Amino acid sequence: MGLVVQKYGGSSVADAEGIKRVAKRIVEAKKNGHQVVVVVSAMGDTTDELIDLAEQVSPMPSGREFDMLLTAGERISMALLAMAIKNLGHSAQSFTGSQAGVITDSVHNKARIIDVTPGRIRTALDEGNIAIVAGFQGVSQDKKDITTLGRGGSDTTAVALAAALDAEVCEIYTDVDGVFTADPRVVKKAKKIDWISFEDMLELAASGSKVLLHRCVEYARRYNIPIHVRSSFSGLQGTWVSSAPIKQGDQKVEQAIISGVAHDTSEAKVTVVGVPDKPGEAASIFRAIANAEINIDMVVQNVSAASTGLTDISFTLPKTEGRKAIDALEKAKNVIGFDSLRYDDQIGKISLVGAGMKTNPGVTAGFFEALSDAGVNIELISTSEIRISVVTRADDVSEAVRAVHTAFGLDSDSDEAVVYGGTGR
Amino acid sequence: MGLVVQKYGGSSVADAEGIKRVAKRIVEAKKNGHQVVVVVSAMGDTTDELIDLAEQVSPMPSGREFDMLLTAGERISMALLAMAIKNLGHSAQSFTGSQAGVITDSVHNKARIIDVTPGRIRTALDEGNIAIVAGFQGVSQDKKDITTLGRGGSDTTAVALAAALDAEVCEIYTDVDGVFTADPRVVKKAKKIDWISFEDMLELAASGSKVLLHRCVEYARRYNIPIHVRSSFSGLQGTWVSSAPIKQGDQKVEQAIISGVAHDTSEAKVTVVGVPDKPGEAASIFRAIANAEINIDMVVQNVSAASTGLTDISFTLPKTEGRKAIDALEKAKNVIGFDSLRYDDQIGKISLVGAGMKTNPGVTAGFFEALSDAGVNIELISTSEIRISVVTRADDVSEAVRAVHTAFGLDSDSDEAVVYGGTGR
Repeated sequence: MGLVVQKYGGSSVADAEGIKRVAKRIVEAKKNGHQVVVVVSAMGDTTDELIDLAEQVSPMPSGREFDMLLTAGERISMALLAMAIKNLGHSAQSFTGSQAGVITDSVHNKARIIDVTPGRIRTALDEGNIAIVAGFQGVSQDKKDITTLGRGGSDTTAVALAAALDAEVCEIYTDVDGVFTADPRVVKKAKKIDWISFEDMLELAASGSKVLLHRCVEYARRYNIPIHVRSSFSGLQGTWVSSAPIKQGDQKVEQAIISGVAHDTSEAKVTVVGVPDKPGEAASIFRAIANAEINIDMVVQNVSAASTGLTDISFTLPKTEGRKAIDALEKAKNVIGFDSLRYDDQIGKISLVGAGMKTNPGVTAGFFEALSDAGVNIELISTSEIRISVVTRADDVSEAVRAVHTAFGLDSDSDEAVVYGGTGR
Repeated sequence: MGLVVQKYGGSSVADAEGIKRVAKRIVEAKKNGHQVVVVVSAMGDTTDELIDLAEQVSPMPSGREFDMLLTAGERISMALLAMAIKNLGHSAQSFTGSQAGVITDSVHNKARIIDVTPGRIRTALDEGNIAIVAGFQGVSQDKKDITTLGRGGSDTTAVALAAALDAEVCEIYTDVDGVFTADPRVVKKAKKIDWISFEDMLELAASGSKVLLHRCVEYARRYNIPIHVRSSFSGLQGTWVSSAPIKQGDQKVEQAIISGVAHDTSEAKVTVVGVPDKPGEAASIFRAIANAEINIDMVVQNVSAASTGLTDISFTLPKTEGRKAIDALEKAKNVIGFDSLRYDDQIGKISLVGAGMKTNPGVTAGFFEALSDAGVNIELISTSEIRISVVTRADDVSEAVRAVHTAFGLDSDSDEAVVYGGTGR
């Protein structure tokens, strides 16, 4: 039996009872002969409470101090978890991100891991301990300051440690049973996916699926670490994310043609109206956006009207960046030379994801037919080799997701309700 | 203007308002031209809440994990304090005990500081920052594990940093106006002491005065760091503790004959009855106690009754150690050879402290007369060069303290009420 990294989110360790329940599950893995490294998030609402305190003392807290503050959350949960494990008669030691060797860049609040040097973890394991590591945090390479990895950071900590320790698997425990063919809150007949490739999971994550974050899956793919997303409550097999299909019992899990339908209503659409249709115009628009450090998603340029020599350019971006984008474009209006800006935050995006579409030419047509049959109007289209995305009115999103899910035969036969919630950080 | 170390206890930073108030006071010192290092405790009840959580997951939490847990408290308060200072337009950086170079031994929950290497603090100061340091915590020299210094540890952190940074003064901010000639909750006419020598302060601390802990004063005396105990609420001059009297305005503060009256009701008395009066008997009793790692305070041996050749030996110790002491003695009963044990936790100790008693022979007589006039019966007596202590019934302590305070002319002329409370850790 090899080394297993387990990650537990904030909802799994929300109180003393949760911590004791998780401790039992960890001890099970140890009893089964594994070396066990556990990555843990802050308890339940701790992070929100700390953010609230910060806002009370300062409207614009410094990044360095904000990270120092937030990392207290995991320090509490990891120490309590180590105590609970010891109380079950097994030895455990907790380690901060810094002690665990999680080295990051210096971008506070959203640092990136640049190296993992888990010498102390390795020693603790070799001495027979279960190692508990604070998720979401690291230490900066240059200044030795405490950093945090941003939203979903604990998952990335787990995968990075799994890679550095050459783990057999990185188990992400959460409050859902795994990754589903669609968001079960929208599609009651959504099915749990037994196995999904890194590539399809990356597209789902980029298209609005919240169970795993893009950065974490990207990291796992780079180091070829299988991820097992599963419930910390049920103990059932969840979803395996890996490069090749896994076996369940005697059966090899088949690659599905379509992995799932994702949706996203967190984006807005900006349309730059009356742009002169000549070389360099689009570049100047997106240079202005890039200089404001805004990431955009889809881009569409309309066909130019021959009579005016003017065209419209639309793009989507997170709603939270909307204000900044409009300001940046207004400031560059004279340089770019456009008529006006339109801002629309009542849009939604529906994406169909599956490597099978590369070899099944009817998928695109089937997708558009399903939307048409449901009376959903398409405003923008964007595709990759294994994904088709469309932008519609926000109000149409749920209906569109259900229609597409049914059309591609993804609906479950069972009527059982699925428990679904957030994943913590 | 030189370097000042300021320490704020948990009651001074109990909420966002408290933190903002303390931030203003710190900025004042910086504006006055000082380099400022601030040592801060955990906010208000944070430590108690963390201890409560620990008890919920484990009846006997491991020392290492308990320290990891508790140190989250200062991490929160120091980050918030740094944010609040920045919000006032001044630069500040927070540092954990480990980052500040507070190196300790490996005795978890009550580690001792063995070295301070404040390189990062010095750099932060040289770059114009106010440095905020977590009190009460350090990192062990051998294992690099997080440790805590035990009760009153933040004061010790402050004095140790002041020594390592060669500070002008270590200011201990608390919720009282300074050190008083007696506990103002017992003696309404107690006076604030303007200056007191390290020696007298050590005796007061050892005799039950709670404002400064013995360990902290001992550290300050060794490195000759003046301590200024003062209120974080009033901003008034408090009590200076140093080797030589300080000046206030044009006046040199005089050395008082008697510094104050301390009392302590946290001790119990053990009497070993019927001990054979021969060499080695006392040694075997106190070897049994020492082997159980119990610190004792006063010891008295009665005159042996010639008829029996037996004597009684009494000693006092913290009530919290009472059970352990009785068990240790019972276990060694055959070796020591005594008749029985008596345990009495209804005692109190009153101590009169002052270097002046060395050259004023009437002090001892005056002390006993005052107690006698107040009808207080003396059970044990112990003296040092600058202190007389007696043990009485616990019920008599308050009356005895007031009588002695009046007899030695310590009563204040003013009738103003004094605010008094705990000092945090």
